[in-house]
Amino acid sequence: MSEGASASVGVIGLGAMGLGMAGSLRRAGYRVHVSDLRGDVVQAFVADGGVACADPAALASRCEVVVSVVVSAAQTEAVLFGERGAAGAMKRGSVFVMCSTVDPNWSIALEQRLAALGLMYLDAPISGGAAKAASGTMTMMTAGRDEAYAKAGKVLDAMAAKVYRLGDRAGNGSKVKVINQLLAGVHIAAAAEAMALGLREGVDAAALYEVITNSAGNSWMFENRMAHVLAGDYTPLSAVDIFVKDLGLVLDTARATKFPLPLSATAHQMFMQASAAGYAREDDAAVIKIFPGITLPPKASGS
Amino acid sequence: MSEGASASVGVIGLGAMGLGMAGSLRRAGYRVHVSDLRGDVVQAFVADGGVACADPAALASRCEVVVSVVVSAAQTEAVLFGERGAAGAMKRGSVFVMCSTVDPNWSIALEQRLAALGLMYLDAPISGGAAKAASGTMTMMTAGRDEAYAKAGKVLDAMAAKVYRLGDRAGNGSKVKVINQLLAGVHIAAAAEAMALGLREGVDAAALYEVITNSAGNSWMFENRMAHVLAGDYTPLSAVDIFVKDLGLVLDTARATKFPLPLSATAHQMFMQASAAGYAREDDAAVIKIFPGITLPPKASGS
Repeated sequence: MSEGASASVGVIGLGAMGLGMAGSLRRAGYRVHVSDLRGDVVQAFVADGGVACADPAALASRCEVVVSVVVSAAQTEAVLFGERGAAGAMKRGSVFVMCSTVDPNWSIALEQRLAALGLMYLDAPISGGAAKAASGTMTMMTAGRDEAYAKAGKVLDAMAAKVYRLGDRAGNGSKVKVINQLLAGVHIAAAAEAMALGLREGVDAAALYEVITNSAGNSWMFENRMAHVLAGDYTPLSAVDIFVKDLGLVLDTARATKFPLPLSATAHQMFMQASAAGYAREDDAAVIKIFPGITLPPKASGS
Repeated sequence: MSEGASASVGVIGLGAMGLGMAGSLRRAGYRVHVSDLRGDVVQAFVADGGVACADPAALASRCEVVVSVVVSAAQTEAVLFGERGAAGAMKRGSVFVMCSTVDPNWSIALEQRLAALGLMYLDAPISGGAAKAASGTMTMMTAGRDEAYAKAGKVLDAMAAKVYRLGDRAGNGSKVKVINQLLAGVHIAAAAEAMALGLREGVDAAALYEVITNSAGNSWMFENRMAHVLAGDYTPLSAVDIFVKDLGLVLDTARATKFPLPLSATAHQMFMQASAAGYAREDDAAVIKIFPGITLPPKASGS
């Protein structure tokens, strides 16, 4: 085990991703400090080893690497600069690792705000879903200064199978993550549109799925999400409103330089239509429910 | 070799796909009759074995299975019903195998028009590109009556690695093909939009390509076509105008039942913008050239 592996590390936000990442760090031998508003989640984690912290400030005073895995830029602001936030408690020279999907320009500015406090920063969005987070095989899309990697690089490696280093200052990690979400969102909406047309035309949905997943029309998202439609199962793995948010970030990013994104704008409208129609918290594959005049496959018995 | 393999079969249209399919049939032992407006292509094929026919009627009088591999419904109409067309020359009980990408409703009607002449029909669009056609490993999306499969099934198997049977009358072959083109077209346009945003934001194009092709934002088309953009090579493998046509077929199909396809409509506009801007005959990845304010990777030296 490396010398760093007995060090303390902090994880703020024990959602589906953060909990898995904290577990990966614990398996790697770190002394993992955790903070989350939900006390029961914290206690469950600590029962298997780890240190519960009452708030981000308490955690930050004990850890020189703080990993933030909350949902949005607004939550990250609260974690850092809210009451009992981390920023005021972190020792100079510590590293804040920002794993949320955010507007890249906000992330660029955050690096500068933290530098003014003597703190280092890694722009480090994550990808891969809860299962890969739990097994330490997720992907990180990162950017930041060499000094920040020098201090936190081993922590990243303990959480992810692949740590892409995309730039020597903040920005490109979030930019690539946002571009991945552009494609993911458009592909889910396109998969729904294609499957909806098939249903409208009376094509057998399972046969269509088999042909497409073996053809040039396939995408990672078609293969993954249309399986939910075939099963009639809209239990949220990732919800419609996540893509209302993420495609919104895509469009905000491009609007800052007045850059047109016709497909992203169209897909964003489709997810907003689904959200407003009452499917906000269903699986994002429920975007197919905006199409009228079709009968979706029923929920498979036993599932 | 099966008993059918010494039989005659006809291939009309020796383009990139038809030429490969005719070669696959020859390798399988068929006596392959060919017809194409370009005499040099016919002579080159016949030089390695095969029978040149002056026109579709001459070919149709000698073959009980006629495979048509032309570009469109209009060309198929000419092959069948034009001057010296095949329809009038085919023996009753022969099978016409229609491999073009067409409006499914036109294909459904064609089955009925041929039945009135005592001819059988297979709705059999193809997928996979010229290389797979040449090696006999392409895919066919087919529908038709059992009697037609009974007569032409071995011919299909000799040309394709996978023959999907999607219905017991014409229509579902073309429907599934059109839906595949919906996804292919939207995915190419989305790939271009994503790569364009990356360039606008100053992300390294090769790094973006590597991350996306290993992430949930990937599609078959992103991986294939963005390699052309990275190489700066817009030599047409499939041209912009093919998707002007094919997404037009997608929209025609849906319009017949008044079904909305917001992403397909947007992507169609993008390909038409590219076509009108002068890129009609470039590779379909040239749809990225509609995005202003970016600098595309230059043509790689040596490529």
